[in-house]
Amino acid sequence: MKSCDTDNLGFARVDIQRQSRQGVAEVVYGEGKTAGQTIEILSSLKSHGQSPVLVTRIDPDKAGKVTAALGGDFTYFPQARLGRLGGNRPCDGIGKIVVACGGTSDIPVAEESALVAEALGNEVVRLYDVGVAGLHRLLSCSDELRAANAVVAVAGMEGALPSVIGGLVDAPVIAVPTSIGYGASFGGVAALLAMLNSCAAGVSVVNIDNGFGAGFLASRINHPKGAK
Amino acid sequence: MKSCDTDNLGFARVDIQRQSRQGVAEVVYGEGKTAGQTIEILSSLKSHGQSPVLVTRIDPDKAGKVTAALGGDFTYFPQARLGRLGGNRPCDGIGKIVVACGGTSDIPVAEESALVAEALGNEVVRLYDVGVAGLHRLLSCSDELRAANAVVAVAGMEGALPSVIGGLVDAPVIAVPTSIGYGASFGGVAALLAMLNSCAAGVSVVNIDNGFGAGFLASRINHPKGAK
Amino acid sequence: MKSCDTDNLGFARVDIQRQSRQGVAEVVYGEGKTAGQTIEILSSLKSHGQSPVLVTRIDPDKAGKVTAALGGDFTYFPQARLGRLGGNRPCDGIGKIVVACGGTSDIPVAEESALVAEALGNEVVRLYDVGVAGLHRLLSCSDELRAANAVVAVAGMEGALPSVIGGLVDAPVIAVPTSIGYGASFGGVAALLAMLNSCAAGVSVVNIDNGFGAGFLASRINHPKGAK
Amino acid sequence: MKSCDTDNLGFARVDIQRQSRQGVAEVVYGEGKTAGQTIEILSSLKSHGQSPVLVTRIDPDKAGKVTAALGGDFTYFPQARLGRLGGNRPCDGIGKIVVACGGTSDIPVAEESALVAEALGNEVVRLYDVGVAGLHRLLSCSDELRAANAVVAVAGMEGALPSVIGGLVDAPVIAVPTSIGYGASFGGVAALLAMLNSCAAGVSVVNIDNGFGAGFLASRINHPKGAK
Amino acid sequence: MKSCDTDNLGFARVDIQRQSRQGVAEVVYGEGKTAGQTIEILSSLKSHGQSPVLVTRIDPDKAGKVTAALGGDFTYFPQARLGRLGGNRPCDGIGKIVVACGGTSDIPVAEESALVAEALGNEVVRLYDVGVAGLHRLLSCSDELRAANAVVAVAGMEGALPSVIGGLVDAPVIAVPTSIGYGASFGGVAALLAMLNSCAAGVSVVNIDNGFGAGFLASRINHPKGAK
Amino acid sequence: MKSCDTDNLGFARVDIQRQSRQGVAEVVYGEGKTAGQTIEILSSLKSHGQSPVLVTRIDPDKAGKVTAALGGDFTYFPQARLGRLGGNRPCDGIGKIVVACGGTSDIPVAEESALVAEALGNEVVRLYDVGVAGLHRLLSCSDELRAANAVVAVAGMEGALPSVIGGLVDAPVIAVPTSIGYGASFGGVAALLAMLNSCAAGVSVVNIDNGFGAGFLASRINHPKGAK
Amino acid sequence: MKSCDTDNLGFARVDIQRQSRQGVAEVVYGEGKTAGQTIEILSSLKSHGQSPVLVTRIDPDKAGKVTAALGGDFTYFPQARLGRLGGNRPCDGIGKIVVACGGTSDIPVAEESALVAEALGNEVVRLYDVGVAGLHRLLSCSDELRAANAVVAVAGMEGALPSVIGGLVDAPVIAVPTSIGYGASFGGVAALLAMLNSCAAGVSVVNIDNGFGAGFLASRINHPKGAK
Amino acid sequence: MKSCDTDNLGFARVDIQRQSRQGVAEVVYGEGKTAGQTIEILSSLKSHGQSPVLVTRIDPDKAGKVTAALGGDFTYFPQARLGRLGGNRPCDGIGKIVVACGGTSDIPVAEESALVAEALGNEVVRLYDVGVAGLHRLLSCSDELRAANAVVAVAGMEGALPSVIGGLVDAPVIAVPTSIGYGASFGGVAALLAMLNSCAAGVSVVNIDNGFGAGFLASRINHPKGAK
Repeated sequence: MKSCDTDNLGFARVDIQRQSRQGVAEVVYGEGKTAGQTIEILSSLKSHGQSPVLVTRIDPDKAGKVTAALGGDFTYFPQARLGRLGGNRPCDGIGKIVVACGGTSDIPVAEESALVAEALGNEVVRLYDVGVAGLHRLLSCSDELRAANAVVAVAGMEGALPSVIGGLVDAPVIAVPTSIGYGASFGGVAALLAMLNSCAAGVSVVNIDNGFGAGFLASRINHPKGAK
Repeated sequence: MKSCDTDNLGFARVDIQRQSRQGVAEVVYGEGKTAGQTIEILSSLKSHGQSPVLVTRIDPDKAGKVTAALGGDFTYFPQARLGRLGGNRPCDGIGKIVVACGGTSDIPVAEESALVAEALGNEVVRLYDVGVAGLHRLLSCSDELRAANAVVAVAGMEGALPSVIGGLVDAPVIAVPTSIGYGASFGGVAALLAMLNSCAAGVSVVNIDNGFGAGFLASRINHPKGAK
Repeated sequence: MKSCDTDNLGFARVDIQRQSRQGVAEVVYGEGKTAGQTIEILSSLKSHGQSPVLVTRIDPDKAGKVTAALGGDFTYFPQARLGRLGGNRPCDGIGKIVVACGGTSDIPVAEESALVAEALGNEVVRLYDVGVAGLHRLLSCSDELRAANAVVAVAGMEGALPSVIGGLVDAPVIAVPTSIGYGASFGGVAALLAMLNSCAAGVSVVNIDNGFGAGFLASRINHPKGAK
Repeated sequence: MKSCDTDNLGFARVDIQRQSRQGVAEVVYGEGKTAGQTIEILSSLKSHGQSPVLVTRIDPDKAGKVTAALGGDFTYFPQARLGRLGGNRPCDGIGKIVVACGGTSDIPVAEESALVAEALGNEVVRLYDVGVAGLHRLLSCSDELRAANAVVAVAGMEGALPSVIGGLVDAPVIAVPTSIGYGASFGGVAALLAMLNSCAAGVSVVNIDNGFGAGFLASRINHPKGAK
Repeated sequence: MKSCDTDNLGFARVDIQRQSRQGVAEVVYGEGKTAGQTIEILSSLKSHGQSPVLVTRIDPDKAGKVTAALGGDFTYFPQARLGRLGGNRPCDGIGKIVVACGGTSDIPVAEESALVAEALGNEVVRLYDVGVAGLHRLLSCSDELRAANAVVAVAGMEGALPSVIGGLVDAPVIAVPTSIGYGASFGGVAALLAMLNSCAAGVSVVNIDNGFGAGFLASRINHPKGAK
Repeated sequence: MKSCDTDNLGFARVDIQRQSRQGVAEVVYGEGKTAGQTIEILSSLKSHGQSPVLVTRIDPDKAGKVTAALGGDFTYFPQARLGRLGGNRPCDGIGKIVVACGGTSDIPVAEESALVAEALGNEVVRLYDVGVAGLHRLLSCSDELRAANAVVAVAGMEGALPSVIGGLVDAPVIAVPTSIGYGASFGGVAALLAMLNSCAAGVSVVNIDNGFGAGFLASRINHPKGAK
Repeated sequence: MKSCDTDNLGFARVDIQRQSRQGVAEVVYGEGKTAGQTIEILSSLKSHGQSPVLVTRIDPDKAGKVTAALGGDFTYFPQARLGRLGGNRPCDGIGKIVVACGGTSDIPVAEESALVAEALGNEVVRLYDVGVAGLHRLLSCSDELRAANAVVAVAGMEGALPSVIGGLVDAPVIAVPTSIGYGASFGGVAALLAMLNSCAAGVSVVNIDNGFGAGFLASRINHPKGAK
Repeated sequence: MKSCDTDNLGFARVDIQRQSRQGVAEVVYGEGKTAGQTIEILSSLKSHGQSPVLVTRIDPDKAGKVTAALGGDFTYFPQARLGRLGGNRPCDGIGKIVVACGGTSDIPVAEESALVAEALGNEVVRLYDVGVAGLHRLLSCSDELRAANAVVAVAGMEGALPSVIGGLVDAPVIAVPTSIGYGASFGGVAALLAMLNSCAAGVSVVNIDNGFGAGFLASRINHPKGAK
């Protein structure tokens, strides 16, 4: 690997060949960066032909500044706090991805997953508010679940959704704990632990509220090497 | 309350009027007591007409010594580590109690609940190995669940069983986390937190592995004051 | 169960037959929802004849918007952050429910319990500021406590109230830890742990500050199946 | 789903149609079961044509009893504490699975992953002792890593391996924290947290020491629905 | 302070003038020391006229070796795992010390407190098995409690005893959490947190199972400087 | 105890005989109460002759309202967030109390201790900014420390001050951890744990930032029963 | 040590001879102090010839007041929240110090390290945004890393950077976890634990976000006693 | 770096050029390895001229087998559970290293540090049992402390030793928390947190009981690049 792989901006070393090397452009973690830093990084990536470029956890205020600087190329999804430079990749995954969530309050995280998966070339089926305390809601979606090539299961509080889905499907289930809850939910820790201890096989877990990570991973699963 | 309510053995002040005052005799916590102490306490309770008297968390070795000292009056249930002095109370609860558990490994805790409830005068229905990762097992028991006046739901690992049952029944659900699991189950903490954060209404929780507490409470619910 | 059991609003699948199925209408968790979402869900439930419908953890601002949209049918209790669509159910429980709390600061959580129990058809006796550090306050209420068919015991800090009450009564005690305290109270964790480890039998626990859950459960206990 | 889907042994409800429903037979969690219970469950599964059947976390002593009861059909892998009833499935995955681990002490967990993946019909490449503190060891395996369709990355202590691998490959990375370490490793918690916070995209995590779960999930990824 | 204050044994620097400087001889923490090291340290202290010398957390096996080496001067209290070289100090405290404990299982820790206080010259009143779940046991001892100049309150599980005592007396209350309990007692953490959050004023806390520390401190309180 | 011991305000049961019973009037925990509630409680206590009455953790805004309502009788100490109704008790303790703190940032907590002790009739010596990282500062105060009848040692960060003082004095040391620090201080937990594990005998601990509790306890120690 | 070593301001005992005693003047922890207190302390140090004097964790508002009071002598670095009274020490370290960080968001902490090291007389090489998920960025800086006499490695999230660097260099590596991350990063705890468990030898760790501590220690390492 | 840098034994990739690359041979972590694996690794290292080679955390039983296999070249230090293949490096550090510990129980960890530092070519001064609760013991060693080029400070319980030493010296202080203690010491966590929060500058921390890491790092500090 040559050092010309990166564009060194001083505060950031931008990976300008990630797309050719790993198939998907570098993703920008928006939270710890100023609007100015974000604009510089996106400009560098754009000028090196990377597209789409995703920016996660970017608040509306910064996003407004980025939009002003980069023009129509940049789309912002406020519910998911996600930005996208360039358009979605063509939909070339080998199957469908289901994004399910337990309650209305989990939708922002679920949307982050869904939008990321769509940006990276996947067809996404959304099943929202199908939490386990009202099982008939989930069971009435059995067909959509069983048809999926990967399932992203998003839930807060007791985080039981991935376990129940894991018993219904034979595709990989990516569990996303959310920080929805109070008291002994400890900001999502209760859901996280439940998911790590799922007695259903085929379940793995990403960080609390990490909708991006789940959508990205689902897309990788849906673009297998062996099938290319 | 007079001080003659207790029989002061020095190492223990035995509550010899609990049965007349609260309906059920004092329960002996076996874990921190020697066989000798346990025998002295049981003898005091027996001589004051308390029956049945339960001893929880008593290991087979101590139980053997107690049996040798107290004779046929004392029954030991090794799987549940439970001892009972005297026979079961007549079955006078107003309904049935279901004791359900997620997996085979949870049965010792579930049995402690079931035996305690039976000792205190309740009809118990056991539904074992009905964990949420194979939902059809639980759903095929819907009738038994819906007929219960109280449900004890015992589970380790992700502890999702009470949430799912809570959505199916309209009786109180007492959740018992077990220490079954490994790694991030943290000896039952994952299940405990999941149960405390249950999104199903009507669920409350007892300590990890506290089968006794759940059975005792289910019996209280099944012997309501208003119905007497 | 048929899928027509739910009214799918996209962001929520409203359970429009919960009342006929489980006796009590779906309860709306207000915290993670916008005022608009809350209004839509309540409108759906109202149009399907569900009443009363409770909304928990709804702040005054959102509650104002809901009141504006739904009119006189919606009552808001600011101290408990609770909303109720429709009137209280007739008082048909088999006994009385006592709601006790340790200190003045615990009253908001205690009121949530009391109001929920009243909405669901129960007579409630309030015993506030009876914490264990001034025992005479609690002991002077012994008669009310002993007459209850279920007790909700609300306390922060060291959370000892349920243990002491559990030793005085023979009804089920539902312990509610509150987040009142500072330092090593860890937002209610100290009280939660104390309650889970209560040496009094007949005590179970709900999540920190979950006054709703305790009131709901007390009502279930006070409406037993066997007594109907 | 009909209740005849399970063979109810009292202490267990065996899922005798899992293989036809989800492609892979029920997996038996060996830890909380007696040898006798394990033998009964395996016999039931075998008599219903399920093969291969995996038993996880079974110690040598119990495994010996199972072997004695079930004969040559049962193979035991002591390092991985894994048993397998029946032979490996034909190798029909669409690509290769790499199982990598950080140090010699992590090998038992890695072997559990590798053996499970092989049992379920996958070609596995083992890369052991390639921890990040001696980076040249990992970098010299870049070709094998980049050729994989899924990577299982097993590590204890600081758990950095999945992050580094995640930056090198474009396949899904399943991170397995191990309990190897001491002091502030807290039985694998340090590695678990590191993996959940990986700054590399495409990484998800299973429970501490859950080699089985990672191997099972890698197999699911390597047998995608869309490619069948 | 001169360096000749200590007798440097290589593995230990023995404080041979502590008694003249602080009134009480150095206390030997037995747990991490071999029998040989303990004997050497005690011999050094004895030869420099320190008496009594206490050894805490010393198991029966080591204590036997110490007794063999030091002869009749050394007394061992197995329940409290405490050794004492020399006799008790004359009883010269200004008042009485009450040592109370919640249950029979807490007695070993309570005894450590009581014996230490007696060794250091105090009259001790023992009130054992007076836990809060049977309040009448504690209330019947109100006179003894109110007469004390310091109270040591020992309890495991929910650790409520010090709060209740703190509301009954006007003397300092030293709370000692014990590791008695299971599940969410976390080895005494639940009791520790409860005691730190006591809503009764005048309560302070020592480490879990630290009966020694509480007895030592009670003695200091009972030997005030101003009263000498 | 008669129920007329309390003045029941509905939201509070005010203990109007605490001063005659326990020597010191009820202390009002200001944090969870409104200004109106605080005023009502103080008025009740005042009208029953209790004085001085302390209000802890009351912010300047509420304190202003209380001052406006109760007039010159109420004094507010903003740094310590402490209010006092009535004047200090006459200085009748048997010795001096030292209040020491580690750094400038710990002074608000130390002042709460000092002011409470003064209000309750004690002479207080303040030794501030004597943290262990500059030992000469502490050692130069050895005489004041050794003359004290009780020492309150306040420290954040690593919380080592009580251990060092405990080795210098022969009076009781009350350790107060503060929330001063960042990162792994966890809001005072690091200091709390250090103090609980102090290897110096004669040290006990109160809750994080509980300057009130330490000052109150020091006063109790300084007003021993035996010396009266 | 004489008590005249300190200038006692009441709220602070300023160490006015630290520079002559330990080579570097006292460092002022800015967070818990008012602007007025900070100014008084700095004035005292300045008048006693201490220079440079560093103030850590001082916010822009307080820094503005200090600048106004102390004039051009005081320099403020807002990104690092660091103030310096007086100029940098001459650059007299025996080698170079590398300060490396994982991502753009870690730069404020890294800058605190770098500025402190420069103030104390060291040449600093900055390597920013060289996180392990894009290994080529770090490897392209191998020469700078290997030339360093001490390396400060700053990282949040999974905190893997020090382990990887530790395997590349033979100089001491000081690991600084940052609070960058979300969910299960727990404000830097994940990175802290990873660093404490580093499998690379030669790594030690300072508190979360403690850039100052790492820079100060690196300077000590770079000014060895033996080399003077 | 070429792949021939390692000797691939299958279960381990031995780094046979570490000594030429980083100055010190690879260190073998003994805990998770069998005696056979340890022997193979040591034989490989020996045959490639690496010396001395250290083996940490190896128990006496395994060490016996290694000694039997490798002969007189292998020395075992049972107290420190350390093995060394080959002799100590010549003593070529630029100064002295002090290893201090708080109590007798901490000596095994301190010895691990001291022996490692000696093996790597350093003169070591041991100061044992100098804990902060008896400050005069530490202060009487001030000269040795101030002469050191690096200090390893080993302590359990409240872990205050490094803070106090850090205020006395101007050399780097490496803090080693030990697992000595009970109750709220949580296996060394209390000491670890105290050390991470040290208010003394120049202190960094290694893992609990990691005497090896501290000795290794002290040696690196004592062999600076700039001084070579």
